[in-house]
Amino acid sequence: MSQLADIGMIGLAVMGQNLILNMNDHGFVVCVYNRTTDKVDSFLNNEAKGTKVIGAHSIDELVSKLKTPKRIMMLVKAGPAVDAFIEALLPHLSPGDIIIDGGNSEYKDTDRRIARVSEAGVCFVGTGVSGGEEGARTGPSLMPGGEPAAWPHIRPIFTSICAFADGDPCCDWVGTGGSGHFVKMVHNGIEYGDMQIICEAYHLMKDALHLSNLEMSQVLDEWNKAELNSFLIEITRDILKFKDSDGQYLLEKIRDTAGQKGTGKWTAIAALEFGVPVTLIAESVFSRCLSSMIGERAIASEKLSNDKKPSYSGDKKEFIEFIRQAVYASKIVSYAQGFMLMREAAKNYGWELNYGSVALMWRGGCIIRSSFLGEIRNAFIAEPNLSNLLVSDWFAKEISKCSNGWRQTVAQAALLGIPTPAFSSALSFYDGMRSSRLPANLIQAQRDYFGAHTYELLSQPGKFIHTNWTGHGGNVSASTYEA
Amino acid sequence: MSQLADIGMIGLAVMGQNLILNMNDHGFVVCVYNRTTDKVDSFLNNEAKGTKVIGAHSIDELVSKLKTPKRIMMLVKAGPAVDAFIEALLPHLSPGDIIIDGGNSEYKDTDRRIARVSEAGVCFVGTGVSGGEEGARTGPSLMPGGEPAAWPHIRPIFTSICAFADGDPCCDWVGTGGSGHFVKMVHNGIEYGDMQIICEAYHLMKDALHLSNLEMSQVLDEWNKAELNSFLIEITRDILKFKDSDGQYLLEKIRDTAGQKGTGKWTAIAALEFGVPVTLIAESVFSRCLSSMIGERAIASEKLSNDKKPSYSGDKKEFIEFIRQAVYASKIVSYAQGFMLMREAAKNYGWELNYGSVALMWRGGCIIRSSFLGEIRNAFIAEPNLSNLLVSDWFAKEISKCSNGWRQTVAQAALLGIPTPAFSSALSFYDGMRSSRLPANLIQAQRDYFGAHTYELLSQPGKFIHTNWTGHGGNVSASTYEA
Repeated sequence: MSQLADIGMIGLAVMGQNLILNMNDHGFVVCVYNRTTDKVDSFLNNEAKGTKVIGAHSIDELVSKLKTPKRIMMLVKAGPAVDAFIEALLPHLSPGDIIIDGGNSEYKDTDRRIARVSEAGVCFVGTGVSGGEEGARTGPSLMPGGEPAAWPHIRPIFTSICAFADGDPCCDWVGTGGSGHFVKMVHNGIEYGDMQIICEAYHLMKDALHLSNLEMSQVLDEWNKAELNSFLIEITRDILKFKDSDGQYLLEKIRDTAGQKGTGKWTAIAALEFGVPVTLIAESVFSRCLSSMIGERAIASEKLSNDKKPSYSGDKKEFIEFIRQAVYASKIVSYAQGFMLMREAAKNYGWELNYGSVALMWRGGCIIRSSFLGEIRNAFIAEPNLSNLLVSDWFAKEISKCSNGWRQTVAQAALLGIPTPAFSSALSFYDGMRSSRLPANLIQAQRDYFGAHTYELLSQPGKFIHTNWTGHGGNVSASTYEA
Repeated sequence: MSQLADIGMIGLAVMGQNLILNMNDHGFVVCVYNRTTDKVDSFLNNEAKGTKVIGAHSIDELVSKLKTPKRIMMLVKAGPAVDAFIEALLPHLSPGDIIIDGGNSEYKDTDRRIARVSEAGVCFVGTGVSGGEEGARTGPSLMPGGEPAAWPHIRPIFTSICAFADGDPCCDWVGTGGSGHFVKMVHNGIEYGDMQIICEAYHLMKDALHLSNLEMSQVLDEWNKAELNSFLIEITRDILKFKDSDGQYLLEKIRDTAGQKGTGKWTAIAALEFGVPVTLIAESVFSRCLSSMIGERAIASEKLSNDKKPSYSGDKKEFIEFIRQAVYASKIVSYAQGFMLMREAAKNYGWELNYGSVALMWRGGCIIRSSFLGEIRNAFIAEPNLSNLLVSDWFAKEISKCSNGWRQTVAQAALLGIPTPAFSSALSFYDGMRSSRLPANLIQAQRDYFGAHTYELLSQPGKFIHTNWTGHGGNVSASTYEA
């Protein structure tokens, strides 16, 4: 009988393959299984040739080839496939065995699966895995959460194969329930935001300043040397200057309709459900939707074309600096909003999240990795009970330094007719946050006027009263029927 | 035996009471029931004294006092109470009888209830009712949808008690399933948007121009005479100048934390689920959330106060006109987005919505009633297959006329530090819609770079390809595992 494997892996798409090879590199023996079993043989004979990876052609065989407690990780498409594999696995497992879901599952599904699997005494872990195909191969960011008893058994593997930043592993136990997948979802939402922010900078540099792709690439190369240093800025720099085989810039040949898989949308929905204003991510998701409305945009661009887009007439170099400030400030807002959302969800579900640790998990390996996340980690280390990133000493100072350029960018974009939904929603949020007085008193007055919803007087906190504004409405306030 | 009633009504909160008195005014005999039966007696002895309204102290009694087919309308709090009354009613009903839910139920619940009730051969109708307490009393907007067989039986009552605009009833059959409640939900979302838009105008006039409440009231009075003529502008004009018993303006004494009951949130969630960029409503919902974060705003307003808010130094009168243009243009965008959402939902659920008819239902009676909705109706009459309000001849012309002032308002607000999330998200949407080229090509390149998600070439529509951007990634595209 050959050696038993340390971990089983179900799913041999690109992420699964790369994670397996990564585990193999770190000395772990992986037994692999795929529903289409041809893929197992193909993988063993090609990508995994010469490794210690072993194969299985059935669930039964897979489980039989694992050490106890049996650890099985799935990297399959989120949804029914995960439930199907859980049901297929459970009859073969014993109490203490561990099922790990590494897909982009909805955190509420993970909650449900933890309960289902625990009936059999089996531990369920939902883990975020980020870094794309390359991250999976060389060191992803890992965000495991679920049944805490599982953590000691998966820790050695996870903290070996993950990315490292400043010497620390970009993997830690997130918390109970669906917290691992929730944190991954917010990560993806933030990723949507980061990408939209960069798109707006690209759009302005291209259409307002008419920079060439090479010039834009050089600008991003400069940005990448300072506060904005990040994976996404780095790859955008490279994408901008990437030439197709005919010598033309490939980027400009690509259709401008953004796809999405759902996690950005889920983040925005969670924000609405929890009542947290995560505006930048929501705008980023909507921007992708708008980009895909090709037909309507074509009609509108003809019908509404009288609104010309003139070029920016001021100093180009100065405006590039304004844009940089808009990018940086908007990014600070977006992360502040994302952490607000995690805080609210944690309060709701009783998760004890360590926000500095979350920042470290994202610091390396994943798509949003950046030196910026090191600063976020520092902010939470300096002030563990920090209520909001925006008011940390560091970020309050940083965002203030960007204020002028950010405002100029939003103002000029509005005048030039170039859409900047992320820059401007972030600015509105920032200006709203720092307003000790917002116009919402008018909303309360209106609601009381037409719906008898009552309002609170500034001078009498906690007391809600109704005014008969017209002199001829009733005095009954709306307690039961809610309009 | 006394006369049998035309309709039964369950729920005696302010909306229910007023709708009953409205039905009575139009010659219908209403039998009323309330779970707390004291309320029935109190209502009969007070508000309903001298009317033909009759009372019931049990569901059994209520049903026994109705003509056939029995029509019972509920105006109770959305949620479990509706299901509980349905279950209580069903044993007393026969095939062909009708249950009408007039609360703010979620449209998916209405779908479910139609199926449940149809098992007993009973017809279920979910109807939007808007207009607040006063509308209910004198003529609400009614948006019934569900089992079409019910419509002939409720039509005489509904089209008598509803509001009328330009001689037409603001009530029509919306469609099958939960379409009535969906349309009501979108109405409420648009109401959130309209209110936020007015708040931003108020905020700018107050903080950038330092107008007095009386001056602002006068501005709104002017606006109310032209394109912006609407119930909400009218009541805001009155709210602005409403003085408390001490002679001070009441509005300024009200706490600036906006409440919400959920329908705006549902609209934004539906927008995300259907992939329709309903950005203005989403920003309006988030603005209410932000307004209620009193504690964090207090901290942030101290910590981030170095960003001063200077006054607007230009011509006041001109800026007021800019703001008017921003209000009008943003409103056009918001309604365009709302109708886009209804169109997408209708496509999804197979509802045959008549958009001109929806505009007419909202034209009078409801909170968002306005002459503007008459123009929307006209646009759909002129072009029944209009894909988007923004490209109708009328609105394309109107929004173009507002472009300059709208852009100036957003630009100045950004520079002054006054949040205008609705104005600016609407402008970004408008500029995005009319962009034949958006920067989403960069998003597709990034996604392909880090996740092998593939992209489409402009020159080869429908063909999705993957590029090995780094020269060292794999050639496997992400087909199964979706990151």
